[in-house]
Amino acid sequence: MRADAARNRTRLLEAAARLVAERGAECLTMEAVAAAASVGKGTVFRRFGDRTGLIMALLDRSERLYQESFLSGPPPLGPGAPPVRRLEAFGVATLRHLAAHRELLLTAEPEACRRLDFAPRHARIAHVTALLREAGVDGDTELLAEALVSYLDVALLHHLTERRGMSLDRLEAGWHDLVARVTRD
Amino acid sequence: MRADAARNRTRLLEAAARLVAERGAECLTMEAVAAAASVGKGTVFRRFGDRTGLIMALLDRSERLYQESFLSGPPPLGPGAPPVRRLEAFGVATLRHLAAHRELLLTAEPEACRRLDFAPRHARIAHVTALLREAGVDGDTELLAEALVSYLDVALLHHLTERRGMSLDRLEAGWHDLVARVTRD
Repeated sequence: MRADAARNRTRLLEAAARLVAERGAECLTMEAVAAAASVGKGTVFRRFGDRTGLIMALLDRSERLYQESFLSGPPPLGPGAPPVRRLEAFGVATLRHLAAHRELLLTAEPEACRRLDFAPRHARIAHVTALLREAGVDGDTELLAEALVSYLDVALLHHLTERRGMSLDRLEAGWHDLVARVTRD
Repeated sequence: MRADAARNRTRLLEAAARLVAERGAECLTMEAVAAAASVGKGTVFRRFGDRTGLIMALLDRSERLYQESFLSGPPPLGPGAPPVRRLEAFGVATLRHLAAHRELLLTAEPEACRRLDFAPRHARIAHVTALLREAGVDGDTELLAEALVSYLDVALLHHLTERRGMSLDRLEAGWHDLVARVTRD
């Protein structure tokens, strides 16, 4: 019984991976996976919950390898290197991991483009970039502005205050600290 | 004709604001606004496009006041204060602006909670927090980790590479710079 379930799951994931490879991530629907694996739509829903669940199952192996690489892999990503070197390697590995699975990850977040390509956000980026330049910050002020403005995100604010129990005061103090670190010589 | 259109728009926005005040942002649907203003659903769609368009129209006045405050208002938010002071004030004003309109802004982004309350993201936050502590960074390492991990976001990566034409190399260099600024004494 268990072995059967695992086999079915593998078969569905193989069909899903084939679908993505042949027709692109945007064609990955529960219906298309059901059709490709010759099972009913209900089977796919029971197994993965929804489209995001299916996507996460597809990425599970790669996500595990990526996590192992920074938790227990060779340095500088894994243990053994100084922490700042590990932090540097971690960001680079994460950016590459995200880039490799970009299409699939983005299908789980249909509002993502709107969130970033959004007039008030553009105004914030322009303002922060201008202030960083005026403050004489050298380096890539556009990217530093993106990093700073990413901290000023309504979903992050909600998550930190409601889910993690942080106060708005703490978030404001965190902003002051972040600005001081980014702008000091 | 123009005056009529403006009046109708105002009437719809008033009905929508009433709806939010009385029943909460989650009850703000195109249908509910149409019913509250005694017009057809099609009228609301023609006027605002979709629910996000309606939400943005509702926030338009507040967004304009907020933008004016940092572009031309009194210092330290507006011109006249040193750039780093203005940057500090800008983040605090933005966090408060977001907190004030949190419910409404979040309804435009239904996947937001999932994006942040997501196992791989928790693993990244835990890892970065641990490395910051190991590196002897003082300050609120949890919040610094949130800021750093927000830079490692697939939607941001997509936006910067596809929409803004930046290379992955540039994003990686930006990460190195950000880590250096956050961790140096």
